[in-house]
Amino acid sequence: MESEHFTDFTPVAKVTLKDLNSKIIKTQYAVRGPIPARAEELKLQLEKDPKSLPFNKIINANIGNPQQLGQKPLSFIRKVLSILQYPDILEDESKLQTLIELRVYQKDVVRRARKLLGEIGGSVGAYSLSQGVPGIQQTVADYITKRDSGEVAYPEDIFLTTGASSAVSFILPMFCNGPTTGVLIPIPQYPLYTATITLVGATAISYYLNEEDNWSVNTVEMENTIQESIKSGIKPTTIVIINPGNPTGSILTEKDIANIIRISAKYGLLIIADEVYQENVFSGNEFHSVKKVLRKLQRKYLGFYETVQLASLHSTSKGLIGECGQRGGYMELIGLTDDVRLEVVKLMSISICSVVTGQALIDMVVSPPRPGDESYEMDQLERNNIKNDLISRSQKLHQLFISLEGVECLRPQGAMYLFPKFIFPQKFIDIAQKLHTEADTLYCKELLEHTGICTVPGSGFGQKPNTYHLRTTFLVPGDSWIDLWRKFHTEFCERYRS
Amino acid sequence: MESEHFTDFTPVAKVTLKDLNSKIIKTQYAVRGPIPARAEELKLQLEKDPKSLPFNKIINANIGNPQQLGQKPLSFIRKVLSILQYPDILEDESKLQTLIELRVYQKDVVRRARKLLGEIGGSVGAYSLSQGVPGIQQTVADYITKRDSGEVAYPEDIFLTTGASSAVSFILPMFCNGPTTGVLIPIPQYPLYTATITLVGATAISYYLNEEDNWSVNTVEMENTIQESIKSGIKPTTIVIINPGNPTGSILTEKDIANIIRISAKYGLLIIADEVYQENVFSGNEFHSVKKVLRKLQRKYLGFYETVQLASLHSTSKGLIGECGQRGGYMELIGLTDDVRLEVVKLMSISICSVVTGQALIDMVVSPPRPGDESYEMDQLERNNIKNDLISRSQKLHQLFISLEGVECLRPQGAMYLFPKFIFPQKFIDIAQKLHTEADTLYCKELLEHTGICTVPGSGFGQKPNTYHLRTTFLVPGDSWIDLWRKFHTEFCERYRS
Repeated sequence: MESEHFTDFTPVAKVTLKDLNSKIIKTQYAVRGPIPARAEELKLQLEKDPKSLPFNKIINANIGNPQQLGQKPLSFIRKVLSILQYPDILEDESKLQTLIELRVYQKDVVRRARKLLGEIGGSVGAYSLSQGVPGIQQTVADYITKRDSGEVAYPEDIFLTTGASSAVSFILPMFCNGPTTGVLIPIPQYPLYTATITLVGATAISYYLNEEDNWSVNTVEMENTIQESIKSGIKPTTIVIINPGNPTGSILTEKDIANIIRISAKYGLLIIADEVYQENVFSGNEFHSVKKVLRKLQRKYLGFYETVQLASLHSTSKGLIGECGQRGGYMELIGLTDDVRLEVVKLMSISICSVVTGQALIDMVVSPPRPGDESYEMDQLERNNIKNDLISRSQKLHQLFISLEGVECLRPQGAMYLFPKFIFPQKFIDIAQKLHTEADTLYCKELLEHTGICTVPGSGFGQKPNTYHLRTTFLVPGDSWIDLWRKFHTEFCERYRS
Repeated sequence: MESEHFTDFTPVAKVTLKDLNSKIIKTQYAVRGPIPARAEELKLQLEKDPKSLPFNKIINANIGNPQQLGQKPLSFIRKVLSILQYPDILEDESKLQTLIELRVYQKDVVRRARKLLGEIGGSVGAYSLSQGVPGIQQTVADYITKRDSGEVAYPEDIFLTTGASSAVSFILPMFCNGPTTGVLIPIPQYPLYTATITLVGATAISYYLNEEDNWSVNTVEMENTIQESIKSGIKPTTIVIINPGNPTGSILTEKDIANIIRISAKYGLLIIADEVYQENVFSGNEFHSVKKVLRKLQRKYLGFYETVQLASLHSTSKGLIGECGQRGGYMELIGLTDDVRLEVVKLMSISICSVVTGQALIDMVVSPPRPGDESYEMDQLERNNIKNDLISRSQKLHQLFISLEGVECLRPQGAMYLFPKFIFPQKFIDIAQKLHTEADTLYCKELLEHTGICTVPGSGFGQKPNTYHLRTTFLVPGDSWIDLWRKFHTEFCERYRS
């Protein structure tokens, strides 16, 4: 190395934000935005100096992350995954027998592990095909067929993905071709959608959900929005629906879904149906998949709904199992032409394949132990416990909100969230304005700083102007956080009462 | 549902390719391109009718996927992952004791599982922080410090990712801001880079590696390329280097790396150092990390190299373990300002977090059992077996290529590939031209159709005009595929001899 050669220039300064991809810089993602970031700071502070804050732990109600909050994984699933990671155990009959006798594994656990290993090709450490393991695609298709009362699903329509987030990153950008293409998103929405639209440089077109009518869809208003958008030079190509709703927790009626499908056929929109909470539905409510309603319309109005294109998403992160960190999911693609479908496969192939254990997990999500299987009773018991816990937690939190001054909250129907509405004192709204922040953001910040409870302000999801909400999961166990919140809110009202 | 309402419009036709995101449509990815796609068709044909083809199986030499080709995973790693999936076993001391006595688990397996579970927060089913589990970031930083002879790495610089592909999708687009920003990529390159550049709408700027000098870098030529690019209105922001090389398998000298760092400082380029094959280095060769060479330059030429920005990538898919399907990896980011670093974290947070078992796996990749640990000897034995296998397979394949008519091939130095050069008969080149295909693509196609061996043509990676190559892994066990290839090539030469 010659010194002169290595110092014969003026080094260029480091890049700054203005040099970087402007679309990325513009993108926002509230679920892990400033409030959760502040919560992480406080968590570190508590580790260093546990007495320095008015609370002793952070309660992460900002994200649906059940196992972080102590929810136990389902044993059957984890036992099968445990064998998939160490399949050598299947080669040693005597050891395996001992493990079965010790009830470490059950016989159906071993059977499922063998089946999955066969389908996967022997090792979860090998890349699979980019679209996923064919045997698991088949299992998912069988599940959908059963879910939709016999409306047949086909394995070649199933794409196995690294959670539902990655499914969105494959299908949504495909239908975006610059700022004159638009994506209809519900307001409030899950911020993954606005983030992805901003990243890809398309335009988000908002349609408001009607809070007064259980967050329903007003399709007349929706058509007006579409027509205005077209007039202003933005062609809608896609409509996102989230059902059960995130952040709202509400469930769409069959009629609402049929109306959305009609609009999709009329304007040629791909429907992205985010149905990751399809199993998180409380009794008394019914989930209707877009696929099933579509097939019904196709049969009823022959020839009219044949062009509808649909991407339906599901995930291992939700349902009763809440296996978020395992990153499994699937997307069912319906109605695309073959060459468009091949483009999706190509895009998936660039990241090679989704995590193979996540693929195995989705197999077990859609195909749990059945009556007669050795693990069936234990699995049912575990599932019922989780279900009952979720229901009771959601009810307790709902009771809290309807008892608080200036707070309204719909009865929980599904998903993992409540999205209460806050009617803040004018004094508080004025203070927020002076601080150049939204009032709901300020409320979430104060809640965090006083109690350690981390939530996400409604402004991160979108809401009608001059309304304020926040999203909180109801996954947190116990009563103490409810008491903390009640005490905080009472003092908050005192503090800001005019 | 009112019939009139539901049929009062003309349905819009399905979308076609010309309606879709033009950047995605333009993107190509050869590793899973037309030749591997044809191989999948042939595989299905063989399943239906095993006698219908001149071979009885497809040999996937197109992708570095060791466990698909029968490589056994390392026991220590898989046993720990097995416990992470079923940690209940740690709660039952007597069962655990029995499993240890049965040698299902060793004591250090249990210790590592407990340590990782503690760091992860109890369950691999919970989302982690977007940047990754802090304890694992620390383990990775310790590994890098040791690898770089004491040049300190910091945990906050480590980003845990879903394989190295996802790391590229976070960092490369950040430095691309439309078609007037350019990314320097080596030719030949790994097609993930051109694919990502096309997707994000930036411009790829090629620099040729010098095959005659062991695929070295000509930095004088590189500077000329940069200056020409700037003159033509494209500002280079990033340079990609792949070391050990993919597809070339060659290893850069310390001097080459120092020269690239000098150019990066002079023109303000982020260096993306794809170092996923850092452990796949055959004896007699030495791997120099960009980070270590950078720190050396920073000390030697005080003040001159402080602005250099570096992203170094690693993966669980490569090395000796080849755990491709588990999708683990990390990225070390050096020299970025705090606000740029926060943008990377934001972008990662949109997909929430990388798969947590993949994060645990990277921990074990960088911190294997040590002398004195119960698993140490077995682990060493397994590693040595894999290493010896890889060396002997690479040598056998190299022997084949240098013995074939019209084929040249450099001695294998590292990675998992050979990239032989083919001097095709003019008659064959003319036929390819008439078929509107590249001659190397036609060769790979004929090889596949005659033998079932699936490879990737050099044109998928880029090569100097009028030269022809192909990339093949040397992971395939046994001699029979070598014999098949020899026989095919001999007949090929006969067929096309002028």
